[in-house]
Amino acid sequence: MRPTITAFEISPDRGQGLARDMRVRWALEEVGQPYEVRLLSFADMKEPAHRALHPFGQIPTFEDGDLALFESGAITLHIAERHTGLLPTDAQARARAIGWMFAALNTVEPPVVELSLATILERDKPWFAERQPVLEARVRTVLEALSNRLGAADWLEGEFCAGDLLMVTVLRRLYRSGLLQAYPKLAAYVGRGEARPAYQRAFAAQLAIFERSKRRD
Amino acid sequence: MRPTITAFEISPDRGQGLARDMRVRWALEEVGQPYEVRLLSFADMKEPAHRALHPFGQIPTFEDGDLALFESGAITLHIAERHTGLLPTDAQARARAIGWMFAALNTVEPPVVELSLATILERDKPWFAERQPVLEARVRTVLEALSNRLGAADWLEGEFCAGDLLMVTVLRRLYRSGLLQAYPKLAAYVGRGEARPAYQRAFAAQLAIFERSKRRD
Repeated sequence: MRPTITAFEISPDRGQGLARDMRVRWALEEVGQPYEVRLLSFADMKEPAHRALHPFGQIPTFEDGDLALFESGAITLHIAERHTGLLPTDAQARARAIGWMFAALNTVEPPVVELSLATILERDKPWFAERQPVLEARVRTVLEALSNRLGAADWLEGEFCAGDLLMVTVLRRLYRSGLLQAYPKLAAYVGRGEARPAYQRAFAAQLAIFERSKRRD
Repeated sequence: MRPTITAFEISPDRGQGLARDMRVRWALEEVGQPYEVRLLSFADMKEPAHRALHPFGQIPTFEDGDLALFESGAITLHIAERHTGLLPTDAQARARAIGWMFAALNTVEPPVVELSLATILERDKPWFAERQPVLEARVRTVLEALSNRLGAADWLEGEFCAGDLLMVTVLRRLYRSGLLQAYPKLAAYVGRGEARPAYQRAFAAQLAIFERSKRRD
């Protein structure tokens, strides 16, 4: 039986692959696990039926037989633990790879999301011009540290791993800001992630849903 | 040999247990693993020697023999995987417990940290009065969802687990805001966490360091 994930019926990012189901799709494609997708409207996401799966009323969720999970990071780790290809087999390298998963979501993503939220929600506010450089500086601080650590390596921990998968999806949220381009090593790193066949398949699958929703309009 | 963690020489929270070494101390106390602590000044944290352990120049780190880890969530998970007491043994319950770890750090913590950052850094800004209710509303949204899910249960996934450990440390950051008190189930939940003997030992250990730093002044 195939696992089922949930995704936006009409993604607010218009198919750019920034919604968090992209992480789970990519992980499933990397390990060669076929899956089903159940699409949800914003109204569906707030219904008790979905809240039972995801207490915070968001996407994605992951259902596999009796098991239901939420949080894209947790689902990615679950997939990585049950298949080969997303975590090193050496115990220490595996622990470090999981460390990069937490770094992506708890150190890098928060300032990146704050910057995009402000760009979207506060553009017309009188304080926008004064706050924006502060938010950008917070992002640059983590990008510089990450770029220094990555150095000349292709991936954060030897071979491509679930930590890279999450990190690439977080860094992609910076495209509109122009900040990523100032760190050529990181821009190339994101490019390597996007070039992976599994990424391409996941991206095409989520884009197809958005394209279909446009045609229905 | 005991693992070694790093912590602030003088914690900016003045010993309230809000620094992220508290999570690792608590986890180590829950599983009965003695540990060493290496204290760092803010200058030490930016030195190459520490950057080699923690690319983002923060605390805590965790060293155990040849293994070096950073990110409090990853260290907590590593401890939970190698000892009993912080993760359920049933595979599905274990996956859900890890899900709560990610929920604590990636869904609940970001709006909580943004609110505290604004309270500290933007109190004198002309926009403070207009932005603060928006930030508080973001926090209330996650608190309400979390309170509804917790319901009458003591812990998020059956017995106390690493997900509760992280969630309690995140929610404690809200004390100054007064927001937690509006959700009696969550306030009681945090109280249950703080009442655990392992929490008490961890809290006392970090407070002792702050008290010692005051006496040296």
